[in-house]
Amino acid sequence: MLLVVGSVALDSVETPFGRADNVLGGSGTFFSAAASLLTPVQLVGVVGSDYPVEQLQPLAKRGVDLSGLERAEGSSFRWRGRYRHDLNSAETIETHLGVFSHFSPKIPEQFKSAPFVFLANIDPRLQLDVLRQVNRPKLVACDTMNFWIESRRSDLLELLKHVDLITLNDGEARQLTEKFNLVQAARWILDRGPRHVIIKKGEHGAFMFTRDTIFFAPAYPLESVFDPTGAGDSFAGGFMGYLARTGDLSERNMRRAMIYGAALGSFAVEKFSVQRLLEVTQADIARRLGEFQELVAFEAEIA
Amino acid sequence: MLLVVGSVALDSVETPFGRADNVLGGSGTFFSAAASLLTPVQLVGVVGSDYPVEQLQPLAKRGVDLSGLERAEGSSFRWRGRYRHDLNSAETIETHLGVFSHFSPKIPEQFKSAPFVFLANIDPRLQLDVLRQVNRPKLVACDTMNFWIESRRSDLLELLKHVDLITLNDGEARQLTEKFNLVQAARWILDRGPRHVIIKKGEHGAFMFTRDTIFFAPAYPLESVFDPTGAGDSFAGGFMGYLARTGDLSERNMRRAMIYGAALGSFAVEKFSVQRLLEVTQADIARRLGEFQELVAFEAEIA
Repeated sequence: MLLVVGSVALDSVETPFGRADNVLGGSGTFFSAAASLLTPVQLVGVVGSDYPVEQLQPLAKRGVDLSGLERAEGSSFRWRGRYRHDLNSAETIETHLGVFSHFSPKIPEQFKSAPFVFLANIDPRLQLDVLRQVNRPKLVACDTMNFWIESRRSDLLELLKHVDLITLNDGEARQLTEKFNLVQAARWILDRGPRHVIIKKGEHGAFMFTRDTIFFAPAYPLESVFDPTGAGDSFAGGFMGYLARTGDLSERNMRRAMIYGAALGSFAVEKFSVQRLLEVTQADIARRLGEFQELVAFEAEIA
Repeated sequence: MLLVVGSVALDSVETPFGRADNVLGGSGTFFSAAASLLTPVQLVGVVGSDYPVEQLQPLAKRGVDLSGLERAEGSSFRWRGRYRHDLNSAETIETHLGVFSHFSPKIPEQFKSAPFVFLANIDPRLQLDVLRQVNRPKLVACDTMNFWIESRRSDLLELLKHVDLITLNDGEARQLTEKFNLVQAARWILDRGPRHVIIKKGEHGAFMFTRDTIFFAPAYPLESVFDPTGAGDSFAGGFMGYLARTGDLSERNMRRAMIYGAALGSFAVEKFSVQRLLEVTQADIARRLGEFQELVAFEAEIA
């Protein structure tokens, strides 16, 4: 079982290829859509009274337990953003936190024993609060962002002591550690708690660092990227979903989980919102995993 | 045997870690320093009367035939550049072409039958002229840069019809093809002649595209990058050097050549100029290849 605590939002996105208004978004949503392809998911989050909850039904059907999704009086978290031609960084046009600004995650009794927990990108104080509510999970991972690194640095450093793994992007890793070099940045973080650090580089792939090993998972070179929103959360969903499904925390299995993450991330960007993730079949996933293997396969036979 | 035609220059480089003045530089020099670790090299280029040719002796000792290195009256090609903290792009402070501006490569008789030819980054008209002088090589590869894409586009397009492989960086691929997506950019180039397109992404690794396959070689995550100058040419030297040594143009062997390229590129950036490439031992290369294998190894066992 895999518990995720994160945002459930409505996104409005413009890319060079089109636009979508008020579609399903948020870290918890993308994570759940990806992870539920691999394992049952328990989602904790909050939406406003204006949220089209019926649109979450396809997730529920696929094994996302929505009983921890609070419905609060007020408006939902909305994000409006735009991607330019390079698709690599979103320009935020508008963020409206709504009910999310008072979010205080309450973990339902039946979720408290989830062996795998993902604390998506929310206030580190709330992430710590979630950890106080759950019963010794087998693996706790968290994500974060520049906003918390700036405004909640000491809470974030406290959180690092209590998580097994952190995912963050390269810019955030540099900001948090004040190290430009990513190997040095990862070591800095490993010294503060987590045994695994995953540094995501968007279209340039992702590294997983431990004290003794470095693994690199490329991003799949797609011929057309439609909308990058949610790629990182879908990556995390694929990664954690595979770990939760297998329950195996060996280096070998965690490397495989990285490729599942990269595969789910690569699907997420093929359409707006969670649209593509809702269509993906097990056969699609198997095919993409094969493509990843083909992408990096070489025999090192040294002459 | 591997023939390279390229620049032999004097570089002055500033990085956040130090500076070096009037040290060996140029695409032909870096390429030769890397390739000669794997196979004998024939270098064609030009230097001015001020060039410290005795400093090329370590290359000669290692099997770089310098008999095609012209010494012309005048001053040598000099480049002065600076890297900021991110080390990803050089800021050119000064370029002094000197004798290089009148360079007209004359391939010595004994070099004309080299089965492997690398046309480093020079005027495409000169690259075409070299191809008129050599005898049907087994594989011809070329490099290029933004300056030629702008100023010699039609010559470059003509050149593409006559080369088997091109290496260029991601920015150049986008500029040449006017496609932002690298898969689309590679396809555009493949449609114009080469059977292989290598797109280099600096610290983010390199892709090799054919009509049917994509291979990705990561850049090695070094804990300290000292000076990125020459990384791309050293990559090309490692790649071509391994192909020339093995004579095997199978996909399997070309993938292995990509890793040799990535390995030699990773050494090049560890010190100024060709300094590290001159120290590297066969054992160092074998170790780095093993590290690359470890970096991307995963078993795709699909559950």
